[in-house]
Amino acid sequence: MAHDIRERGLKKPIAVAEYVFKRLHEIGIRSVHGLPGDFNLVALDYIPKAGLRWVSSVNELNAAYAADGYARAKGISALVTTFGVGELSAINGVAGAFSEHVPVVHIVGCPSTISQRNGMLLHHTLGNGDFNVFANMSSQISCDTARLNKPSEIANQIDHALRECWIRSRPVYIMLPTDMAEKKIEGARLDTPIDLTEPKNEPEREDYVVDVVLRYLHAAKSPIILVDACAIRHRVLDEVHELAEKTRLPVFVTPMGKGAINESSRTYGGVYAGTGSHPDVVKRVEASDLVLSIGALKSDFNTTGFSYRTSKLNTIDFHPTHCTVRYSEYPGVAMRGVLRKVIERVDLSKLSPPPSPEVVNEVAENRDNSETVTQAFFWPRIGEYLNENDIVVTETGTANFGIWETKFPPGVTGITQILWGSIGWSVGAAQGAALAAKDMETDRRTILFVGDGAFQLAAQEVSTMIRHNLKITMYSRLPNSVLQNDALKCTHSFLIYNEGFTIERFIHGREAEYNDIARWQYTEVPTVFGGLDKQVRKFIIKTKEQLEKLLTDKVFNEASGLQFVELWMPREDAPRALKITTEVAAKNNAMIE
Amino acid sequence: MAHDIRERGLKKPIAVAEYVFKRLHEIGIRSVHGLPGDFNLVALDYIPKAGLRWVSSVNELNAAYAADGYARAKGISALVTTFGVGELSAINGVAGAFSEHVPVVHIVGCPSTISQRNGMLLHHTLGNGDFNVFANMSSQISCDTARLNKPSEIANQIDHALRECWIRSRPVYIMLPTDMAEKKIEGARLDTPIDLTEPKNEPEREDYVVDVVLRYLHAAKSPIILVDACAIRHRVLDEVHELAEKTRLPVFVTPMGKGAINESSRTYGGVYAGTGSHPDVVKRVEASDLVLSIGALKSDFNTTGFSYRTSKLNTIDFHPTHCTVRYSEYPGVAMRGVLRKVIERVDLSKLSPPPSPEVVNEVAENRDNSETVTQAFFWPRIGEYLNENDIVVTETGTANFGIWETKFPPGVTGITQILWGSIGWSVGAAQGAALAAKDMETDRRTILFVGDGAFQLAAQEVSTMIRHNLKITMYSRLPNSVLQNDALKCTHSFLIYNEGFTIERFIHGREAEYNDIARWQYTEVPTVFGGLDKQVRKFIIKTKEQLEKLLTDKVFNEASGLQFVELWMPREDAPRALKITTEVAAKNNAMIE
Repeated sequence: MAHDIRERGLKKPIAVAEYVFKRLHEIGIRSVHGLPGDFNLVALDYIPKAGLRWVSSVNELNAAYAADGYARAKGISALVTTFGVGELSAINGVAGAFSEHVPVVHIVGCPSTISQRNGMLLHHTLGNGDFNVFANMSSQISCDTARLNKPSEIANQIDHALRECWIRSRPVYIMLPTDMAEKKIEGARLDTPIDLTEPKNEPEREDYVVDVVLRYLHAAKSPIILVDACAIRHRVLDEVHELAEKTRLPVFVTPMGKGAINESSRTYGGVYAGTGSHPDVVKRVEASDLVLSIGALKSDFNTTGFSYRTSKLNTIDFHPTHCTVRYSEYPGVAMRGVLRKVIERVDLSKLSPPPSPEVVNEVAENRDNSETVTQAFFWPRIGEYLNENDIVVTETGTANFGIWETKFPPGVTGITQILWGSIGWSVGAAQGAALAAKDMETDRRTILFVGDGAFQLAAQEVSTMIRHNLKITMYSRLPNSVLQNDALKCTHSFLIYNEGFTIERFIHGREAEYNDIARWQYTEVPTVFGGLDKQVRKFIIKTKEQLEKLLTDKVFNEASGLQFVELWMPREDAPRALKITTEVAAKNNAMIE
Repeated sequence: MAHDIRERGLKKPIAVAEYVFKRLHEIGIRSVHGLPGDFNLVALDYIPKAGLRWVSSVNELNAAYAADGYARAKGISALVTTFGVGELSAINGVAGAFSEHVPVVHIVGCPSTISQRNGMLLHHTLGNGDFNVFANMSSQISCDTARLNKPSEIANQIDHALRECWIRSRPVYIMLPTDMAEKKIEGARLDTPIDLTEPKNEPEREDYVVDVVLRYLHAAKSPIILVDACAIRHRVLDEVHELAEKTRLPVFVTPMGKGAINESSRTYGGVYAGTGSHPDVVKRVEASDLVLSIGALKSDFNTTGFSYRTSKLNTIDFHPTHCTVRYSEYPGVAMRGVLRKVIERVDLSKLSPPPSPEVVNEVAENRDNSETVTQAFFWPRIGEYLNENDIVVTETGTANFGIWETKFPPGVTGITQILWGSIGWSVGAAQGAALAAKDMETDRRTILFVGDGAFQLAAQEVSTMIRHNLKITMYSRLPNSVLQNDALKCTHSFLIYNEGFTIERFIHGREAEYNDIARWQYTEVPTVFGGLDKQVRKFIIKTKEQLEKLLTDKVFNEASGLQFVELWMPREDAPRALKITTEVAAKNNAMIE
């Protein structure tokens, strides 16, 4: 056969599908998310051969959300869908990963190159013979697009896509035709690992920027460090930690940077997000004469509606692809090299760091006389309940604003989607994050906070949590539910029951029917989706006393499987920061020229 | 204020949102599908003012599926989502409507024109200041894209988009910025209905084609009519029925054309789809010396893998935008005008129509001695159970192949998605179709046949069925479940329980784990999603005897609410046509140059 001839020159012939899955394993992936579909089935056969686990989510959007959560917890992830129907179902989840700088390898099984060339009228097509239309859509939300059509180019294309995915920390799209999945390519390449090292800055240029930074830093009277999303996503946290420890400067995080810093450290000063921040934080950050801003991503919801009152003249911005000092721009100078040299060369004798504001969980301050569990009380109280190294997933809505009031123990990974903000995302993301913890063979708990409205969009992913016996605690408001899954020390989730979309109510339509949702029997959801009594523990919490009892219960804290907590909170209650942010959003929507 | 000045010249000022919703009402829409999101909330306030119902699906993909089903039952439908996250979650459903020629008006609430101009870093964006990227994606699956940015152009843009949607029978995309939703435009335009009439063919050209058609028709010895998808979707069924009744020619349907013809008519000959068809049908169609093919859409799954054995020399093709006689093409000559004149001018004395094959539900022929409910037995038996005017929704998978063996009573609407084939679609589509029946104030039942694998993808849409008290019976295999909803005489659904993706198993991976799904407690699903005992009836059917009892039960047949039937059938059983089609698909996938 023709393809045997072509294989003759290969030292270690390997099927394309096996090659790509072995590469995924090499870069740290252990579980692959996705759904089977007629154009990816043959490729799926190679997943176990590469030492990978097939997750089998319940639908593609949930699978994409889960891949996003897995990558945030483990560094990178993979998603396999089928042409047209499957990939488009997932596209919102992948777009979120693009928006938020999360590296997800999206592999799409597609019709054979021959069917494509002949423009065949196949199922899962638009019926117009165009087989590129979906790849073109995805190219808008991918930092590389690889169409694997020629065996001689495929290994290069795969290696290049995986490198781009990692370096640029964004999704890539790989289109794998059915007739290419088993084509043999050179397997000897696998003996050389993919080069994932970042390009170095040009030394002279880098030194120049370092000098400028140090000049301002040494001259400043009250410098601070502000850590944002891209510091996490572009993996400079080691540098950030060294800088903070060496300089002893006060260090703050943005909402999207939450989890980047050890919040028990004496120099940790709290969450800064403009007007939505704690008053002590606002005062300290906005009075600073030099903000070392690392990985900023100043979106509306990350800044309480663009409400920073810091001056560009007092700011140095460190970014993955450039740095900015006041109004001077240094394109092509990536933050990592600059930060490393600043750490080496900083003259501590020229710094007299002021103390940071004290950060505590303000539980007592927010306890009122009622039995109602309020937002104000709940989030600080959760801070006391969290353990070191928990993974905390907060849904877009009340939870990702409430968590500003929670002080994390050391080692906690915070996972939110504040920029993209796709409702329902956290349910899938928690599954992925818990699976990542399981794949890392750690005993970490995953705690999910999600409102009932958001939960409904992605509810069936609970089925996947159960299938993989993940350790999740889940929690929801008015009434609130907490869903906690810990069988394999993987996840915990709290379901906040508040009868609809609270964040939308605060933007517009406080009483509108369109913000209502149907009333489900939430605590029965895990049972219906296959959870046995020994796998799933369920709780309904309506009072502070019940909450206290639950959060101090030994078995609950061990969280040995899925734990589902339905938590009742008042419908029109919301975290302070959410109220301020949504007011700005509503004004923005109505803005008239 | 500035906009007051602009309004001064208006005779009947009306808000943009009210204008568009009043137009939707005018063209026959009564319920609007979608989800609330921060960029569409103000617009949603105008839905009740225009006499429309807000459906509030549980997620956007389900809402898009439901809009598709609504349009198939009622003619046209509308879907409202929010920018980025909402619209991308829906895009697979809208792509399906594009692929299958279903008119869906997709309205996306987006950030204000000012935010767009300023490239603000808003939530639900990619963070790159590009506000056109999602509209550009959707333009690939829309026949018109309207960005409503200038009040003076908006009414024209809306009217044009709605006309295109109807005439071309495909989705349109309307981008409505928050600051435009309440801008006042001229309401006096609403006194003149939108012109939805199709352009007429050029008379001389049309007459020419009619003459050619009649010459071949009068000369043919065994002409037949074959009715396909586009005859339904482009609304020429009145013409088709007149042609069939007047000429008495044998008339066949393709799988995508099923439901187009009264199957009790003496001239109805059955389903033709190449090798997957009944042998009598194959014989008659392929021996014909003239096939009048109306609205053909010869996709792989509609033709048992491109297995037609009809000659182009014996075929006249009638299409929405052109006709083809043998190899002669007539672009720009639409089928409707040609068909009307053929009906008027055909000389019956020159036709001697042969008899059609007899079509019966082959129940007795397919009854074996076991108690197992087999695919072969089930589908003809369902033919005996169906009533006149039922709406029958079949999922991609076993059901849309099985239904070939079911003879419909008169007036039945068949709804399938054979070309696009998105798994899970039928659950949303059944909700939409049942709601359409409710909006038409009819007493029609909606019967849904869906496998357990597909059901899981879209399960939460059962919540919307319950919320609107729809009349649905649902049915699933091995074990099979039938979910039947009839509270408002709206829908019925059968859930076929077969532990995974049967159609994928037949393509590849018969025993592969990736084709397995988690085991749910299916009959509890409606209860968890808020269904009270008085609203939902549940049945588990494992034997032919139980099935017989159910299908002849008076109350079950009245179907007064949601009825959910879990129907057990053997895991590796599949309809005959599915087996043949998937063999071809697997070969196609593996095709080597």
